[in-house]
Amino acid sequence: MVRSSEILLETTAETDILNITQDAEEKVLQSGIENGIMLAFISGATAAVTTIEYESGVVNDLRRAIDRIAQRGMVYEHDRRWGDGNGYSHVRASLLGPSLAIPIRHCKLLLGTWQQIVVLDFDNRPRRRKVVIQIMGD
Amino acid sequence: MVRSSEILLETTAETDILNITQDAEEKVLQSGIENGIMLAFISGATAAVTTIEYESGVVNDLRRAIDRIAQRGMVYEHDRRWGDGNGYSHVRASLLGPSLAIPIRHCKLLLGTWQQIVVLDFDNRPRRRKVVIQIMGD
Amino acid sequence: MVRSSEILLETTAETDILNITQDAEEKVLQSGIENGIMLAFISGATAAVTTIEYESGVVNDLRRAIDRIAQRGMVYEHDRRWGDGNGYSHVRASLLGPSLAIPIRHCKLLLGTWQQIVVLDFDNRPRRRKVVIQIMGD
Repeated sequence: MVRSSEILLETTAETDILNITQDAEEKVLQSGIENGIMLAFISGATAAVTTIEYESGVVNDLRRAIDRIAQRGMVYEHDRRWGDGNGYSHVRASLLGPSLAIPIRHCKLLLGTWQQIVVLDFDNRPRRRKVVIQIMGD
Repeated sequence: MVRSSEILLETTAETDILNITQDAEEKVLQSGIENGIMLAFISGATAAVTTIEYESGVVNDLRRAIDRIAQRGMVYEHDRRWGDGNGYSHVRASLLGPSLAIPIRHCKLLLGTWQQIVVLDFDNRPRRRKVVIQIMGD
Repeated sequence: MVRSSEILLETTAETDILNITQDAEEKVLQSGIENGIMLAFISGATAAVTTIEYESGVVNDLRRAIDRIAQRGMVYEHDRRWGDGNGYSHVRASLLGPSLAIPIRHCKLLLGTWQQIVVLDFDNRPRRRKVVIQIMGD
C-alpha cells in the first residue's frame, strides 16, 4: 500500500525551522498503514528536512552552525548570475538534503522521545511550502 | 512485506563511530526479503547514520571534520538553558541525519566493496542505542 | 513491486557534480510503478547524492562550501596511512551521504521545478560509477 499526502507551511524568509511531527503522525494514522516507512520530502531547492530536539536553544544552535557553513553575507556565484540573493539558501539545502525516511511500527513513527521532524526553509523570501508525506507498508 | 528489527549498541561518550554492516546484513538475510530497501534509523536526537570506509584513519578524519563544523568547546544556547553540556551533540546529529536507506538485490545490500554502515553517537554520556532496521520488499 | 536498475557515469576526478534527473525519470517510467518511492544510491565510499538547482553558479558555490568543510589540501590520517591521497573525498562523502529517496506520484518524481538530482564524485581519480535506482510501489 502507498498513501501520498501533503503538509502545507507558510514561512517568513528568516531561516524558519518548523516542527511537523504532529502533522506527520496524523498522516500516518490516517493512512491505515501499520508497519512500513514514512518519507518526508520537501519539493524545492532551498529547503531541507531533518530531526532535532525541538527546543529553541538547540534550534538556534543549529541555525548558527548552518550559518558558519554557508554564511548569508558571503559572495555567491549564483547571486552574481541571477541576482536573487539566495545563493546561501541553495547551498544549505543541498548540504542538508530534502528527504527523510522514518520507520513505522504499530501505526507509530519510531522517533526518540526528544526527537522531532523539522523542515528548514533557507530561502530569502516568504514561501508557501509543500512537504510530501509518502507512506508505504502493510 | 515489512520486517522490523533492532540492533543494540553500547557507546562510550567519546564520539563513537560504530560499524553495523555485518549486523545489518544478517537482518536482511533473516528477513527473507530478496529485493527491496533496508532503512537504518537511529531513534534519538544526538546520533546519526551514514556510510564510510571503516578504517581508523578515515574514521578519525571524519571525527575531526565534524568537530570543525560543531566544536565541542563552543558556547551552545542549549547548554546555557538545560545544563546537560551536549549542545554540540544535538547540532552534529541534526546536520548528519538519523536515517539511511540502502537497496537490497538478491538478499544483499548493494554497498560498495569499501563502504560500511556506521552509527555515530555524539552524546557526552554513555548510551544504550537502538538502531531500527526496517526492511521492505518482496 | 520492486524494480532495480542502474545509471552508469564516467567521472573526471575534479569533484564532478552530475545531473541524473532525466535518467532517473526514465527509470521511473520504465518501471511501470505509478505510486511509491524511488531510491538513488551510490555504491562507493567517495561519492554522494543530493538535490540542487542545476545551474553552474550554484554548483560552483556548493563545491566551494564542501571544500571549506573538508579541504583538499589538508593533512588527512587516511592519506598518511594508505597514500592514495583521497582522504578529503572520504570525509566529504560521509558528510553528504550516499542515499536519496524521492516520492513518486502518477509515474512522476515529486521534485520541485528547479530541483534536480545530482551525484557528487569526490574521488581524486576518474571513476566509472554505478548509481542504483531502486523503485518500490504499486
